[in-house]
Amino acid sequence: MNESPTIEDVRIAASRLSAKAHRTPVLDCRSVDAWVGAKVHFKCENFQKGGAFKFRGALNAILGLDRQALARGVVTHSSGNHGAAVALAAGMARTDAKVVMPANANRAKRAAVQAYGAKVIECAPTQAAREEAIARMVEDEGRIVVHPYDDAKVVAGQATATLEFMEQVPNLDRLVAPVGGGGLLAGTALAASIASPRISVWGAEPEQADDAARSFAAGRRIVDPSASVSTVADGLRAGIGEIPFSIIHDRVDEIVTVSEAAIIEAMRFLWERMKIVVEPSSAVALAALSARRDDLRGRCIGVILSGGNVDLDALPWSPSAPSMS
Amino acid sequence: MNESPTIEDVRIAASRLSAKAHRTPVLDCRSVDAWVGAKVHFKCENFQKGGAFKFRGALNAILGLDRQALARGVVTHSSGNHGAAVALAAGMARTDAKVVMPANANRAKRAAVQAYGAKVIECAPTQAAREEAIARMVEDEGRIVVHPYDDAKVVAGQATATLEFMEQVPNLDRLVAPVGGGGLLAGTALAASIASPRISVWGAEPEQADDAARSFAAGRRIVDPSASVSTVADGLRAGIGEIPFSIIHDRVDEIVTVSEAAIIEAMRFLWERMKIVVEPSSAVALAALSARRDDLRGRCIGVILSGGNVDLDALPWSPSAPSMS
Repeated sequence: MNESPTIEDVRIAASRLSAKAHRTPVLDCRSVDAWVGAKVHFKCENFQKGGAFKFRGALNAILGLDRQALARGVVTHSSGNHGAAVALAAGMARTDAKVVMPANANRAKRAAVQAYGAKVIECAPTQAAREEAIARMVEDEGRIVVHPYDDAKVVAGQATATLEFMEQVPNLDRLVAPVGGGGLLAGTALAASIASPRISVWGAEPEQADDAARSFAAGRRIVDPSASVSTVADGLRAGIGEIPFSIIHDRVDEIVTVSEAAIIEAMRFLWERMKIVVEPSSAVALAALSARRDDLRGRCIGVILSGGNVDLDALPWSPSAPSMS
Repeated sequence: MNESPTIEDVRIAASRLSAKAHRTPVLDCRSVDAWVGAKVHFKCENFQKGGAFKFRGALNAILGLDRQALARGVVTHSSGNHGAAVALAAGMARTDAKVVMPANANRAKRAAVQAYGAKVIECAPTQAAREEAIARMVEDEGRIVVHPYDDAKVVAGQATATLEFMEQVPNLDRLVAPVGGGGLLAGTALAASIASPRISVWGAEPEQADDAARSFAAGRRIVDPSASVSTVADGLRAGIGEIPFSIIHDRVDEIVTVSEAAIIEAMRFLWERMKIVVEPSSAVALAALSARRDDLRGRCIGVILSGGNVDLDALPWSPSAPSMS
């Protein structure tokens, strides 16, 4: 079984990715500082290859495979950014990738996976169908599974964003990252623990998908596959993974939950004031700052903007956007 | 009468603005390079204060005023980015600003001017009404007019974006900037002429507002106030100014015109692939590259992204966008 990554794993990941992933820029904005009442720096993983931080973890996992494994290829399931990241990373590592997607997946995301050179395998939109499809490709083709978050190398890869961030802004005293499956938040906390004195770390999660916050409060991972999850932050709908939870439980200070309206407000603020395209999942972290501004006066805060892959024809503030319950 | 700015004026502007305007970042993107077939760098003036390059010219003009003039205040006319830039710059220079706007101006833009601390003076939506309102404030209140482009200090201020750009990317061999009133393009060409060997400079203009291209081809400034100008690139609807035209005539190599569809396609490409919010006027420059890719192989091109102020409720690709004739 896959164990938790160590700080040494994070350093190895950083060295593997150094010439292959973008060292994304850090931006800041006075309007945001005024809104939050603190100094806020943004690590722009929306500018990362594939449009999200996911490329870091996928590439680190794939570059960590031996020659035999690379010859057999990789497989993953994802209807979002991780599928595109695996496709892109596999192409760079010259290995073959298959991405299992539900038949009703977003056509633009499906097209992105194919454009990066991976094969899309359709399955019925159920967890059982997905797992069966992956198991078949592992058994028949010997493919290696690149899990979106419950994988030590993936978490170590995501941690490299924070390693860079702390070099770019050495005086950060708080880091905030969104949490879905937990790979990014666990990586953030792991990388932050390298710094001394310790930086405090917050997770940010939609109220409508708050299994990480509930798990954190309970001190044990709560898995509830039947829970209704209907947040606009489509990147944060996954339940928290085992490896991420163990790191988050030990190293994260708090998980702040935010409403759907607050997510959309923060997203629009980032677009209008900072002139950057971020997806709703990224805005969750800024929404958490806004909700907790009384605790932040005078702080120097780092926010990881997780990605920028949005459907420009269905923005959440447009009249034609799907309604959120 | 106002004369053309010199290279020395540009250096003075750079020194005036150095601590007060953002040194905006330069971004690039492999998808753009692949699309255009050349290496393209983008100077992100959409990240400038006020969301557009206009702040540079406005601030340089206002900081160039003597104490007496500052005590009397400034006035300008603008229904767009220049009005907000003058409001913002006047606040920084602790002088009073009035901005004449047509009664039917966009409410968001009006609110931005007011939020930056300037007073909005309403007039009827005709050129005569606007000129009359400004003349009255010059006569009655002794205010100084800060023209959006037909002003040597404004042009010198806009030129500072290119000075920075050439420092950030020393090997540029072509610069492309959009042209409306001509302040940005003239400033770009003036700053480029400081470099040696000379960088070639292109203007980019909508076909639907092509007075600069026609003037350039004719070798004389063509002013046609009755011409119908209905481009999505709302920042480029002004006719070309006298001072800008004299510089553009002498120092620009070519003005490329592009269709409305090409502008919208380029704008969407920048949002989707680069994850940045740019206004249609900025996309005109990328559309020009795309139209002329056969002439660009192997080049190292610099594009000035002029601004990022858009109405997120009326994007040009949305079904509710106003139609363009």
